[in-house]
Amino acid sequence: MAISGVMRPGHCQLRVLNLDESVKFYTEVMGLKHMGFDAQGRAYFKCLDELDHHSLILRQADKAGMDFYAFKVRDKATLEQLDADLRAYGVATERIPAGEMLETGERVRFTSPTGHVFELYAEKTMVGNGLGFEAPEAIIDGRRGISPIRLDHWQIHGPDLDGSRDLFVKVLGFSLVERIKAEDGVTDVAVWLSCSTKAHDIAFVRDERANTLHHASYLLGTWEQVLKAADIITIHRVSMDIGPLRHGITRGTTIYAFDPSGNRFETFCGGYDFYPDMPVITWPFEEMGRAVFYHTRQLNERFLTVVT
Amino acid sequence: MAISGVMRPGHCQLRVLNLDESVKFYTEVMGLKHMGFDAQGRAYFKCLDELDHHSLILRQADKAGMDFYAFKVRDKATLEQLDADLRAYGVATERIPAGEMLETGERVRFTSPTGHVFELYAEKTMVGNGLGFEAPEAIIDGRRGISPIRLDHWQIHGPDLDGSRDLFVKVLGFSLVERIKAEDGVTDVAVWLSCSTKAHDIAFVRDERANTLHHASYLLGTWEQVLKAADIITIHRVSMDIGPLRHGITRGTTIYAFDPSGNRFETFCGGYDFYPDMPVITWPFEEMGRAVFYHTRQLNERFLTVVT
Amino acid sequence: MAISGVMRPGHCQLRVLNLDESVKFYTEVMGLKHMGFDAQGRAYFKCLDELDHHSLILRQADKAGMDFYAFKVRDKATLEQLDADLRAYGVATERIPAGEMLETGERVRFTSPTGHVFELYAEKTMVGNGLGFEAPEAIIDGRRGISPIRLDHWQIHGPDLDGSRDLFVKVLGFSLVERIKAEDGVTDVAVWLSCSTKAHDIAFVRDERANTLHHASYLLGTWEQVLKAADIITIHRVSMDIGPLRHGITRGTTIYAFDPSGNRFETFCGGYDFYPDMPVITWPFEEMGRAVFYHTRQLNERFLTVVT
Amino acid sequence: MAISGVMRPGHCQLRVLNLDESVKFYTEVMGLKHMGFDAQGRAYFKCLDELDHHSLILRQADKAGMDFYAFKVRDKATLEQLDADLRAYGVATERIPAGEMLETGERVRFTSPTGHVFELYAEKTMVGNGLGFEAPEAIIDGRRGISPIRLDHWQIHGPDLDGSRDLFVKVLGFSLVERIKAEDGVTDVAVWLSCSTKAHDIAFVRDERANTLHHASYLLGTWEQVLKAADIITIHRVSMDIGPLRHGITRGTTIYAFDPSGNRFETFCGGYDFYPDMPVITWPFEEMGRAVFYHTRQLNERFLTVVT
Repeated sequence: MAISGVMRPGHCQLRVLNLDESVKFYTEVMGLKHMGFDAQGRAYFKCLDELDHHSLILRQADKAGMDFYAFKVRDKATLEQLDADLRAYGVATERIPAGEMLETGERVRFTSPTGHVFELYAEKTMVGNGLGFEAPEAIIDGRRGISPIRLDHWQIHGPDLDGSRDLFVKVLGFSLVERIKAEDGVTDVAVWLSCSTKAHDIAFVRDERANTLHHASYLLGTWEQVLKAADIITIHRVSMDIGPLRHGITRGTTIYAFDPSGNRFETFCGGYDFYPDMPVITWPFEEMGRAVFYHTRQLNERFLTVVT
Repeated sequence: MAISGVMRPGHCQLRVLNLDESVKFYTEVMGLKHMGFDAQGRAYFKCLDELDHHSLILRQADKAGMDFYAFKVRDKATLEQLDADLRAYGVATERIPAGEMLETGERVRFTSPTGHVFELYAEKTMVGNGLGFEAPEAIIDGRRGISPIRLDHWQIHGPDLDGSRDLFVKVLGFSLVERIKAEDGVTDVAVWLSCSTKAHDIAFVRDERANTLHHASYLLGTWEQVLKAADIITIHRVSMDIGPLRHGITRGTTIYAFDPSGNRFETFCGGYDFYPDMPVITWPFEEMGRAVFYHTRQLNERFLTVVT
Repeated sequence: MAISGVMRPGHCQLRVLNLDESVKFYTEVMGLKHMGFDAQGRAYFKCLDELDHHSLILRQADKAGMDFYAFKVRDKATLEQLDADLRAYGVATERIPAGEMLETGERVRFTSPTGHVFELYAEKTMVGNGLGFEAPEAIIDGRRGISPIRLDHWQIHGPDLDGSRDLFVKVLGFSLVERIKAEDGVTDVAVWLSCSTKAHDIAFVRDERANTLHHASYLLGTWEQVLKAADIITIHRVSMDIGPLRHGITRGTTIYAFDPSGNRFETFCGGYDFYPDMPVITWPFEEMGRAVFYHTRQLNERFLTVVT
Repeated sequence: MAISGVMRPGHCQLRVLNLDESVKFYTEVMGLKHMGFDAQGRAYFKCLDELDHHSLILRQADKAGMDFYAFKVRDKATLEQLDADLRAYGVATERIPAGEMLETGERVRFTSPTGHVFELYAEKTMVGNGLGFEAPEAIIDGRRGISPIRLDHWQIHGPDLDGSRDLFVKVLGFSLVERIKAEDGVTDVAVWLSCSTKAHDIAFVRDERANTLHHASYLLGTWEQVLKAADIITIHRVSMDIGPLRHGITRGTTIYAFDPSGNRFETFCGGYDFYPDMPVITWPFEEMGRAVFYHTRQLNERFLTVVT
């Protein structure tokens, strides 16, 4: 049966140091479509192929990072049910009225054990991808920059990884797909969770720094587009992190770089499809190099330590 | 939430005219792994990347075509529930005992309005893909022939398309993703249905010939592998149908050819991900050319008429 | 040693039925750069990656087809030498003064045995590809339409194939790379000739229709770009011929369509590198299907018969 | 006109520390075809697509590195001419008799100013690629490991870069394609030279260590095959250097690793075609990062310093 419950990452609100510079970056380099501003001055963006009004909101602030991460759920009944389930689990929830965010219905907001603020919502205006739903063309032409297909997932860091993992699995219906164990062979240092057939919709990493963002990730269609993303990053002199490379975890092929505020982003392609009858894949601590960087099989200081 | 209910196409039993020749074809040209024979003389195959014991069974017979199409469901409770739902809907079901098919649990069998025989099952031995579930490698080497990732879907033909469509949507939890309308603009001549985030797990086409198979489809990872499939088809002088090409429907890129018994198969890549908040895509009758053959925008006699 | 003598196809002058429509087509769909018009009203174009001022000239006329085909030669001394060699071989030559064609030096013009008009030239203004020659970027961004790398070769038809073949091999220093034999097993019905390490810089096909053009061909970088060309062709409703496909001859992967005047063009990728110590590859007449259409292994009426 | 004079890298003799281990490596991981041993115990290899008997010879020794680098020339007359030209230029030459190396004609051997030993030869037995020269198939199936198309070029280091550069350009007919300048803006620290339409057939780097090898390079067909090479390198736990990445110089996409003896190899794809009317591309010293590593735009200690 098609996805029910929590469906996918829906939007996220990113703090940027200079809004004008960031609007330019996300439009020209990332190739997102700028959908406008709201009364609070927040800038809204969607990927060209996305159907909903926006998936990225930028808010100017003094410190980079992510304000909150939102998932779209199947319908209003699901939203109500999940709100009740969260509260029954002991998680305080808050309602953000419809319209507080442009084109978005009521949001149920809560804070996870790792300190991250999450939202669930059921309604966002569907603006379409320009192709329509009657005998559509197969491609969207006139793309610029990296031009990913959609906001795909986030990797976020915080101390109580077990708490966030359990919340997502037990209450929000996520499945554990892959995990890296600590040296003790028991404790999870990182988990990849899916609410779909994607290898992951979110990843948590144990880190003493609560409520931090490792990266927001956008989907590309092919390995050739990962190369193009790398080339675009270079011609625009974007601050590079690492790539092109393949991850052992999820098998995805990817490149990481930093937006003008130092928020890390990923543009990736591939990986296997997850079905819930698949056993969890476990990486012992000593295999972390190959897990993260399948080709070099070594960890990278910046990749491990920089978060916003 | 991850897939529940009906998860994916699980296995199908194909009638072949010469078993030895077909075992050779599916091993050397398709690149499947031959898992052995059962006491009835049926040959079992899996794609290298698949985790379950088999997805294709060959049975020697006088006439090509497909005996039955099976979907794997989430668990035994789901199997029981769907069996009850089918009967409540007026569809007679039959239980095939565990073990009748190697390594497979009990199957619930029913016949659809289009005359096709379907099965649902919850259990099949997981033999793995050779990579294991601890710090696995990212690729399976030593592949031969076309070597697809998995059995992906089928396109099947029969008269009561509405009946099968309604059964799959109302009882089995499938979603309607795309449809082609008849000249009257109302009647469906073809429907693409998904039980996952795939653009389709099965497609039905209206055809006076009940219980026929248009093609069984296998997934490839990239457009480059579609080219390789086409080259493999040529070097083995496999009977070609059409491709490489792109479909307007689902946007998948693909090639079609015939196995030694004349059963059509497809090896394809790509297409968008389906979420249940997406509107149905509709193709008017006059757009059928571009819907099926996006590049040539014309239909092809053989593709429209040959079924087994 | 690097290419000497005749180096590569340099420019060609194509007759189009409607200049405005064609300028739009070659700019928006083909993605060439329009370099302007001359006093005669001819429109000039270059591919983005090409360094010289232009490779395609359009001249409005009542009948589609190609006025002439020009090769760039190594230097003026080579030009003089080839002029002398042609005349010594019995081929009348004519000098077209520098500047008759914008930004182009003196041209030596002659007519081949198949009736085609050829030119040789040594000088054309180098305008560059926008990247410069100091620490250049690796990609040109902002491409539109199909956007090929360069004009690559032509396939042209005429009766005295042997005459044109011998002229190109004996006088112009081309190498015979591949050939298709007639049913008699002796006569060449088609030849692929190279003046470089390309599998061909020109192909001649025996045809009672003298001085005709089968196609002008442009190079793409990858098979993925061939798919994109096919998609671009569809979204612009360009008149399709055939593809994506692979040729047995040269192994190139390609797609063919028609410009608004009915002139066939090809956008292709790949093929092996030719070195002059390679034996000629010969295709018997009965293998012509696989030679031309490697996957379908069958000839196509329109592809065989339509020329301009 | 097709390539004349020096045509391409023809063979090289690599010193390996353990012959058995190296034969296994070059067969299973690199995917070359082992052609046998000679009376001296040297192992011979060819890439599957190459037509000549071999392009790589392994000789067991106590120290890794390359014994000599050989280019194939157009014919015996060219060989004689180049021998004379070398001697006229003041370079001592030596004749190695036909048969000293299996299946190879007489070789003209000389030492370049950078201390590297080079050979020129005109004859090597053509064993073919298994496809034949009559109506051949377009692909070679049953490949294993990385399976490159051909030996493509070498990057070698030594002190008198100017001397080797001038020898290759003035006597051997190579063209200077790209260069990196020293901080003084005048001195070449590295040069890329071509004897064909390849962006380079050899590269020299100024280095106080005479007669050293940076890498031997093999050609792949696509960026997807570069990813596959990277995956193969990982599954065999080959000692990695760096990649996948793109070079600013030549634009090639590539990956570098070390054979079991520590000799670095490259498997790459792409880059532009060189014609001798192209201006030389120059990289100022401060752009060396982007020149070598286009995406990270930073140099890498190991890549700069490790040679054999």
